[in-house]
Amino acid sequence: MKIGVVGLGRVGKIHLSNLIYHFPENDVVIVSDPAVETHEFAHKLGVKNVVTDAEEVLTHPEVEAVIICSPTPFHVPNLILAARHGKHIFCEKPIDVNLNSIEEARKVVEQHGVKLMVGFNRRFDDNFARVRELVATGKVGEPHILRITSRDPAPPSLEYLRTSGGIFLDMTIHDFDMARYIVGSEVTEVYVKGGALINPEIEKLNDIDTAVIVLNFENGAIGVIDNSRKAVYGYDQRLEILGSEGMARAENRTENDVILAGKDGITGALPLYFFLERYEKAFRVCLQNFLECIAQDKPSPVNVHDGLMATAIGKAAMVSLLEKRPVRMSEVLKELDREVIASGSN
Amino acid sequence: MKIGVVGLGRVGKIHLSNLIYHFPENDVVIVSDPAVETHEFAHKLGVKNVVTDAEEVLTHPEVEAVIICSPTPFHVPNLILAARHGKHIFCEKPIDVNLNSIEEARKVVEQHGVKLMVGFNRRFDDNFARVRELVATGKVGEPHILRITSRDPAPPSLEYLRTSGGIFLDMTIHDFDMARYIVGSEVTEVYVKGGALINPEIEKLNDIDTAVIVLNFENGAIGVIDNSRKAVYGYDQRLEILGSEGMARAENRTENDVILAGKDGITGALPLYFFLERYEKAFRVCLQNFLECIAQDKPSPVNVHDGLMATAIGKAAMVSLLEKRPVRMSEVLKELDREVIASGSN
Amino acid sequence: MKIGVVGLGRVGKIHLSNLIYHFPENDVVIVSDPAVETHEFAHKLGVKNVVTDAEEVLTHPEVEAVIICSPTPFHVPNLILAARHGKHIFCEKPIDVNLNSIEEARKVVEQHGVKLMVGFNRRFDDNFARVRELVATGKVGEPHILRITSRDPAPPSLEYLRTSGGIFLDMTIHDFDMARYIVGSEVTEVYVKGGALINPEIEKLNDIDTAVIVLNFENGAIGVIDNSRKAVYGYDQRLEILGSEGMARAENRTENDVILAGKDGITGALPLYFFLERYEKAFRVCLQNFLECIAQDKPSPVNVHDGLMATAIGKAAMVSLLEKRPVRMSEVLKELDREVIASGSN
Amino acid sequence: MKIGVVGLGRVGKIHLSNLIYHFPENDVVIVSDPAVETHEFAHKLGVKNVVTDAEEVLTHPEVEAVIICSPTPFHVPNLILAARHGKHIFCEKPIDVNLNSIEEARKVVEQHGVKLMVGFNRRFDDNFARVRELVATGKVGEPHILRITSRDPAPPSLEYLRTSGGIFLDMTIHDFDMARYIVGSEVTEVYVKGGALINPEIEKLNDIDTAVIVLNFENGAIGVIDNSRKAVYGYDQRLEILGSEGMARAENRTENDVILAGKDGITGALPLYFFLERYEKAFRVCLQNFLECIAQDKPSPVNVHDGLMATAIGKAAMVSLLEKRPVRMSEVLKELDREVIASGSN
Repeated sequence: MKIGVVGLGRVGKIHLSNLIYHFPENDVVIVSDPAVETHEFAHKLGVKNVVTDAEEVLTHPEVEAVIICSPTPFHVPNLILAARHGKHIFCEKPIDVNLNSIEEARKVVEQHGVKLMVGFNRRFDDNFARVRELVATGKVGEPHILRITSRDPAPPSLEYLRTSGGIFLDMTIHDFDMARYIVGSEVTEVYVKGGALINPEIEKLNDIDTAVIVLNFENGAIGVIDNSRKAVYGYDQRLEILGSEGMARAENRTENDVILAGKDGITGALPLYFFLERYEKAFRVCLQNFLECIAQDKPSPVNVHDGLMATAIGKAAMVSLLEKRPVRMSEVLKELDREVIASGSN
Repeated sequence: MKIGVVGLGRVGKIHLSNLIYHFPENDVVIVSDPAVETHEFAHKLGVKNVVTDAEEVLTHPEVEAVIICSPTPFHVPNLILAARHGKHIFCEKPIDVNLNSIEEARKVVEQHGVKLMVGFNRRFDDNFARVRELVATGKVGEPHILRITSRDPAPPSLEYLRTSGGIFLDMTIHDFDMARYIVGSEVTEVYVKGGALINPEIEKLNDIDTAVIVLNFENGAIGVIDNSRKAVYGYDQRLEILGSEGMARAENRTENDVILAGKDGITGALPLYFFLERYEKAFRVCLQNFLECIAQDKPSPVNVHDGLMATAIGKAAMVSLLEKRPVRMSEVLKELDREVIASGSN
Repeated sequence: MKIGVVGLGRVGKIHLSNLIYHFPENDVVIVSDPAVETHEFAHKLGVKNVVTDAEEVLTHPEVEAVIICSPTPFHVPNLILAARHGKHIFCEKPIDVNLNSIEEARKVVEQHGVKLMVGFNRRFDDNFARVRELVATGKVGEPHILRITSRDPAPPSLEYLRTSGGIFLDMTIHDFDMARYIVGSEVTEVYVKGGALINPEIEKLNDIDTAVIVLNFENGAIGVIDNSRKAVYGYDQRLEILGSEGMARAENRTENDVILAGKDGITGALPLYFFLERYEKAFRVCLQNFLECIAQDKPSPVNVHDGLMATAIGKAAMVSLLEKRPVRMSEVLKELDREVIASGSN
Repeated sequence: MKIGVVGLGRVGKIHLSNLIYHFPENDVVIVSDPAVETHEFAHKLGVKNVVTDAEEVLTHPEVEAVIICSPTPFHVPNLILAARHGKHIFCEKPIDVNLNSIEEARKVVEQHGVKLMVGFNRRFDDNFARVRELVATGKVGEPHILRITSRDPAPPSLEYLRTSGGIFLDMTIHDFDMARYIVGSEVTEVYVKGGALINPEIEKLNDIDTAVIVLNFENGAIGVIDNSRKAVYGYDQRLEILGSEGMARAENRTENDVILAGKDGITGALPLYFFLERYEKAFRVCLQNFLECIAQDKPSPVNVHDGLMATAIGKAAMVSLLEKRPVRMSEVLKELDREVIASGSN
């Protein structure tokens, strides 16, 4: 397959490297990034055609599939252009912060019959995929309580936070997607409690750094996510689900499996430091799933509807935090065509 | 010390056995239970004076301290009578379901200068006491997020549930006390999401069997408790607290520490089955603390204020469930003398 | 049942307390210890008849069973006297350091038809009993490799070591018994490698403080025990067995199940400190088995043959260390009646 | 750097892939394998010059370093030829089964001043490297007892075993190297106990499938390795070292970190299936160390001496098994120049 990549930021580089090293049967014919200083990275990996203009990639006559890793505001324009030129699309999360924009994207994608996959790579993590498998095969029975712990090792800079869209669309959005994925049911209500406990400066940005979020699901299950921007012991990515037949639980992956037993205690390794380390393999498997869904003409494993819902839950969370009350998803989704929500799209 | 015991139900028997076997330097001079068939248990342990009338115990001239294990509605009348006769008091939880009754009890206890300890035995569990120690000595820094998982192996009978006072006063009350104990700060707001996911019959009793409860604390920390009446793998009693300097986490105690590695996986032991097994030692250490606080004239480690607050949080949870909104503790406590709440009592 | 106890050393006190507190349906009618200062302990527990002469216990007309906790050299004379007076016998390990003495004891016990149980309490530890159960029920298949780790937190005093009989009869003897118990087959050969790595003074006593012992079993399995007199992190008591169908493994019991995750690592609790803590319950269950085997007229769960073999393996280990070669058990056992060894006794 | 690869068997393919994907700054100019059907693998990775004759690689004028993955009997001839042509050498283990051949190779390598690294990749495993670090930095104090568990998931075919050189040179050789690496001291004596417990056919090949090996070290430490050709639960690669200040222990890496808690127990994942999965990263880091030691002109991290000693311990183990006695390493090494052994080579 001939592939084009848009954007050579942190995540764009990961996808490009994975394409070159791990899926060499495909051909990266063109890569774009407005910042020319990023081009050397692509050149070193053997990409010959590196340009500054995304349009060249999205409309390139040979390109069959595009990987969109541009900044979030460009996602929808990029993917609409790509869809109109008949390219299959891998789009980094979130598709957009505006639900109507996502809806518009959905229509164009459907109209042109191309595949779109959203880059919720964590679904492809060995641990979380295993928990999902245990739920899907009935090993935990009917889901009752879902718990997700998602904590970063350190907060990003205030500069970054200023334009991040807030903790829910920047960080928790992954957990919102994971919640839907693991439970296998739609979220119906959101309640949030949070604060700026780590750095009061974050409050001045109308943002928070610590949050507990309660989710209700259509199937009756209750979920709870806890987020922190700073867990001093490292990137904490755990979840567990209790059901009528059992409980499945994913612990952290650690740097090693060594303990040191000394006179003061038994000390073990920290979790893998951050998402690059923890989700290194998940990024690769995620991309592999995209390539396979095209090659084998299968439905996208993470579709526009998934992208829409993750953003919508984030919106509901923002309202809940602001208004200090539980917020029904129907409140947030009311402006959209209900059928879409109910049925999903490819 | 000369001790009297009121009530020979399940918990009364535990305390009586512990007194006889583990604290033989004390003398159990009299025990009461209205059901004469329970008396044999006390006789076998060597107690000579076993009566049907609690009043005989609570007013017995030789008795210095009483252990009150009567049904909840009798707690306050029992302890007021005991206090008026100058006995030190160990009272099973909850003191009462009515906040004003607890307040009345508090006044009598204070007036007569006797000690009162509430039987929140879990505070004395090796695991939870260790987490509290780590918090109290600053090892986790400022508390940010508390998570308590508290799940029973199987729901009690519908007959039991009919008069249990509801999940919050029957089951979660232990977790409410634990939350205050671990965080070391007062709860200011409660939000509940729950349902009857295990047995729909429970809903007909206006009760639930599955709950997620969000707590706010005065110091800014956020807590979340998840409860289930049925975890098929056994009694699940875990907690963790994330703070600015680290995270402390208590796992379950298991039946043994043996794994079997076979071709299909590695299988380990279940948690200790239920509270009698899990908290066997905690019951003993709890009683020991009561005996020591009298012998050494130290403040009660779990005082009337602690008993009052656990019930009050339960009340707030009931309102939240009913009205589907977060409930401030001040709403629930407004009928009481505010100073008491702020300062605690012995 | 009416019981007499001989010896109020550390272990005698444990058994006496367990009898009084946990098996109060039995009656401790007489206790002896030559040191009168130990008598107070028994008096406080309510024993009225406390004497200095063991003979009074062993021949007491009312006594049905005796618990022999005298120093090792007195075990055989004590148990012969008890057997001749028709008492059932619980004897602390080792029965004796001389195989022919044990053999003599066996004959007298058989002749008088009394039960004899040797105090290998570790067989009744929750972890080890569970591993044995997994082996006995075929869950690990045919045993191939047994590994026992048995390490003390700190070496005893040189004074103690001077008369201890050496590491194999003092410390490893428990592991020798455990090896036979877990594998369910007789040891046929012993090879030892060891040294005084912790304290060179121990070498001057012709003893060692660190050892690795290889055992061969009749069923073809190979066992390896590693011993150390000093594991700074505490009492290390683990074992694992690999078989054709799987592997069972017992980890240490720890003080608690709490971890602290800080920026430098994740720290957990140490193992329970020493044998009094770790085997507290095992001592009790061991005694319970003795009482039950009499009450229900069942065979002794740890019989004279078990006591003989543990000592015999210890002897073989001493020869191996001295002569730096593998030693066949038949070498050590040749002076004894072979049929006894093959068939076991009650 | 310009690199040549000799041999496209299982391990040759791993090294070639790693060179192409992970160290693209180097240039694989030529690859050889006598079997032309293996050549496609190299072609697909973009290697243009793929030949049947190893000599072409080893003498290629542009090649600066060679990776030798030919069958063991060709290692020494291959590496002598490469050394004579001034190539740096990475040689798969074992260098040879004949000590004098290894010694000859050592001389040629030294004479021509090239670097030689032996492919003991496990030293670069995250777990084992961490344990070595803890030992090397004094965290465990003086080493006393080393335990290595090394078990395969299933035995190889009898065909393979027929020419494997026996379990010690085929399988345990990795553990012998690991033992020296972790303890940081030379082995002085070897004692073996083993048998064909898994498949009696293996005994007919004069081989065994289950072994326990005791090692003595110059620094007084005692080591014990247990090997099995069949652990039904998967590839079992653990080790622990007890020292005067503590104990370090490496557990298995598992497929995931998920547990399922059901009514019959708590089940977790199996270890990574076999060496390709478990040591995937170790192979890469091992190669990286080779490339770095050339680029930065550092001593080889695993030198000829290391290769010699691993084979020599294997020889001693064979003698011990055959003669049923402990064997001093000096017996095995007596034919070689003693200074070499003592000082090591680059």
